[in-house]
Amino acid sequence: MSDQPEERRPRRRTAGVAGTAAHDRTRAYRQLVNPYEPLRVFSDDHVAAIHEAALLILETQGMRVLSEPARRRYEAAGASVNEATMMVRLDRGLVTEALATTPKGFTLHGRDPSRDQPMSGRHVSFACVSGPPNIMDVEGGRRAGTFADFKNLMKLCQSFEVMTILGGGVEPQDIPINIRHLDTTREMLNLTDKIPLVYARGTGQINDNFEMMKIAYGLSDEEFRSKAYATGVINTNSPLQLDIPMAEGLIDFALWGQPTIITPFTLAGAMAPVTIAGALTLAHAEALASVTLTQIARKGAPVIYGSFTSNVDMKSGAPAFGTPEYAKAAFGAGQMARHIGLPWRSSNATASNAPDAQAAYESQMSLWGALMGGCNFILHSAGWLEGGLSTSYEKFILDIEMLQMFAETFQPVSANPADLAVEAIAEVGPSGHFFGCAHTMERYRTAFYAPLVSDWSNYGQWTDAGALTATQRAQKIWRETLANYVEPARDPAVVEAIDAFVAQRKADGGAYPVS
Amino acid sequence: MSDQPEERRPRRRTAGVAGTAAHDRTRAYRQLVNPYEPLRVFSDDHVAAIHEAALLILETQGMRVLSEPARRRYEAAGASVNEATMMVRLDRGLVTEALATTPKGFTLHGRDPSRDQPMSGRHVSFACVSGPPNIMDVEGGRRAGTFADFKNLMKLCQSFEVMTILGGGVEPQDIPINIRHLDTTREMLNLTDKIPLVYARGTGQINDNFEMMKIAYGLSDEEFRSKAYATGVINTNSPLQLDIPMAEGLIDFALWGQPTIITPFTLAGAMAPVTIAGALTLAHAEALASVTLTQIARKGAPVIYGSFTSNVDMKSGAPAFGTPEYAKAAFGAGQMARHIGLPWRSSNATASNAPDAQAAYESQMSLWGALMGGCNFILHSAGWLEGGLSTSYEKFILDIEMLQMFAETFQPVSANPADLAVEAIAEVGPSGHFFGCAHTMERYRTAFYAPLVSDWSNYGQWTDAGALTATQRAQKIWRETLANYVEPARDPAVVEAIDAFVAQRKADGGAYPVS
Repeated sequence: MSDQPEERRPRRRTAGVAGTAAHDRTRAYRQLVNPYEPLRVFSDDHVAAIHEAALLILETQGMRVLSEPARRRYEAAGASVNEATMMVRLDRGLVTEALATTPKGFTLHGRDPSRDQPMSGRHVSFACVSGPPNIMDVEGGRRAGTFADFKNLMKLCQSFEVMTILGGGVEPQDIPINIRHLDTTREMLNLTDKIPLVYARGTGQINDNFEMMKIAYGLSDEEFRSKAYATGVINTNSPLQLDIPMAEGLIDFALWGQPTIITPFTLAGAMAPVTIAGALTLAHAEALASVTLTQIARKGAPVIYGSFTSNVDMKSGAPAFGTPEYAKAAFGAGQMARHIGLPWRSSNATASNAPDAQAAYESQMSLWGALMGGCNFILHSAGWLEGGLSTSYEKFILDIEMLQMFAETFQPVSANPADLAVEAIAEVGPSGHFFGCAHTMERYRTAFYAPLVSDWSNYGQWTDAGALTATQRAQKIWRETLANYVEPARDPAVVEAIDAFVAQRKADGGAYPVS
Repeated sequence: MSDQPEERRPRRRTAGVAGTAAHDRTRAYRQLVNPYEPLRVFSDDHVAAIHEAALLILETQGMRVLSEPARRRYEAAGASVNEATMMVRLDRGLVTEALATTPKGFTLHGRDPSRDQPMSGRHVSFACVSGPPNIMDVEGGRRAGTFADFKNLMKLCQSFEVMTILGGGVEPQDIPINIRHLDTTREMLNLTDKIPLVYARGTGQINDNFEMMKIAYGLSDEEFRSKAYATGVINTNSPLQLDIPMAEGLIDFALWGQPTIITPFTLAGAMAPVTIAGALTLAHAEALASVTLTQIARKGAPVIYGSFTSNVDMKSGAPAFGTPEYAKAAFGAGQMARHIGLPWRSSNATASNAPDAQAAYESQMSLWGALMGGCNFILHSAGWLEGGLSTSYEKFILDIEMLQMFAETFQPVSANPADLAVEAIAEVGPSGHFFGCAHTMERYRTAFYAPLVSDWSNYGQWTDAGALTATQRAQKIWRETLANYVEPARDPAVVEAIDAFVAQRKADGGAYPVS
């Protein structure tokens, strides 16, 4: 029987050419630039209308600000504060003034300048998953995150060039909450040489985190304050509320000159309007109020405009991610960020409970939505699962593959006369092949991305090798990566100084998170 | 221990609101329009240079055309033909003249006008997988395709609105090749009311297929010839060769006024240059030569510009799909199609051997590359696995989910004043929720896409329900869909007439594929 597939495979299959240089190219994954024009869902008029509506909300409703010191700062700057309701109303002049002093871009500095990540224009940075309480792997299942898991995640971040910024990884629930930040920030600084993302859980913890960074980087207070070295996420409590740790975070990071990622978490239909435009209007209002507080604290403080707008399942109320609405909200959020000229953060999110096909396609929807919307900073870019309640080792590896594929998709396509290969086509002739021709031999080593997880072997080879799914292969890869982890170079005196600081602060009782 | 996730979930979770109307919205999946500006990898100068290089190749190298009647047609139109080498050289005037008479767009007509699919501008159509010899499902494994499988695939196509055009599904290897086309086309016409895609395996089979369509649609020869009702794929044998069945297909479809999807299958590094620009240059040259033959056969014959440019693994020679190179080649191919003003076809492809996370992320890369590149026609949009050597039932369902997500991503985001929800935000107030407010109640039924496969339940509910992966859920869904399949209305007299035609042609010995 004929089995002629419609799309014909090459009739001859050669052995190809041996040897690749996949590792050389990963350096290009730092300081990525996205060459594509951002996609849009709104007209310019709609963008302006959403901005106006957000200003109107801040003027007429305002934000409930739970922090008394934050209310005082708003009030001193000219906002109208009702102490009984804790509502802070901002007129548009105050917001506009704040936007005028907010940097349109800046650089997050690494310990080594080669690790710097620009936050502006078409630059893209990928940051690790941050904050899930649970950890999962396909063998061990789902369990509370531990310090050992946290350290593993930092080692995995260090091992892949595409991951340029850290994240909380997973909550190490085996460490008391008053000293957890000391141990996690120390390990970020020990196990990686990448840019830290630390939590805003009150002034005490923030100061500890920044003090450790100053020791690690050998910076005075003034030097640290003069450049962006670390970042942290500020989530408003949508709708229209700013709680105590978040308000403290906005102020403290601003005073230290460090950028907050201001991210209203607006689930359309639940804590935000059911319409995408409405959820983005609310998010924009909350972001503007928060940006304003940073500029009141310190004019010129860097910020990143964060968006996390998705929808819920209207039957159950369950949050959903990587949905069509999520992708469209990302395109729209990018337009709002560009409208006010700020770098923009989005996420690689999925609601899947397993590192399976759903996790992959929802992550792809999130990533394409964010990246083709012009995103500068993708948080949770590797490892997030279960709507952010778990970090998955296998998902981390699947995500790294996807991030690397985006990094490669961003590399320009050369179309010089030699690339058009007219001579090679003449040389090979009709029904020949290009494996051995000079045009190929000069280029094959770096022509294509060599995958991390993807298996392109034929069905027989794949079956002989155990018929492993991508998730099973990812399990092997994270284990091998941890086994092959290489520590960054560290100055023993610095390590000792950090350790001494941590020991002293633990002896002092650490710092409890504020709530 | 605290388990405060960084990104805060809503603190209160309500039960949501019951009842959705997911099925009503699927009508909007017909005649889809992609609202996004196509992404580009080439400058206008590069596009012009690739077009020029392709013309130069056709002038100086030409195509090897294995069909003698096709060579005669080229020659009569003014091409230079070398009978010894079978090389046909086309000067740019001949190609330019052909492009001038090729329609810039047309409509593929359904039996019912509501099934019409425009092939122009930003319109998007999804067609089923076509041609794999093997079938797979997670229980039954991988085996040769059968007629029963083919019929199942047609029923699945009929069951999802987003699938607007058919495809070969899987090769029914239990039917002899001289009568296979009779049985498959009959079942397309019996089991669905969607637009057929038939194979170009020689004039005999093509005429049989079109005769059955004329009977089914009640059309005279002239009526059939006057509009596009069916389509078929023409693959060149890259590099630079056009074989007998493909040349016959170009001519026969053109004479019948039916559109061919002219698709060079150019794997960079194997049967095409190792550079994306070179592989696209070769593909463009082959497409131009093929388009020219259609216009020589019948001026004004509709065609679709197909692209299938991917890369191979340079270590093994294995074809790869859904790679970064694939996505960038798709963006570039779309630019070439628009340069000559033709509707453009791409594919949803993956090299994965299983319907797993790799299959999902490679398909997403293919689909985003094609669709954000401005594609009008996605072949293999559901069911393709293993580089086109297998059709997978589970992958079919996973793909339908992804296609529906794109269809939803294409629906415009409304941003009228009411959508901005300023009043609802005032009504709900700080830290309230939107589940019960009037703004939500008026919209919740149709606000969001309701997924087919995705499971958004929480980890406990998901575990209680068996902890099924997306692939396992897809298995349940294709079985249920087949069980619930509804036949389209058919005129018994027409069914009888088609059956009589098939019986007669079988008695006559059918028609063997040409090779």
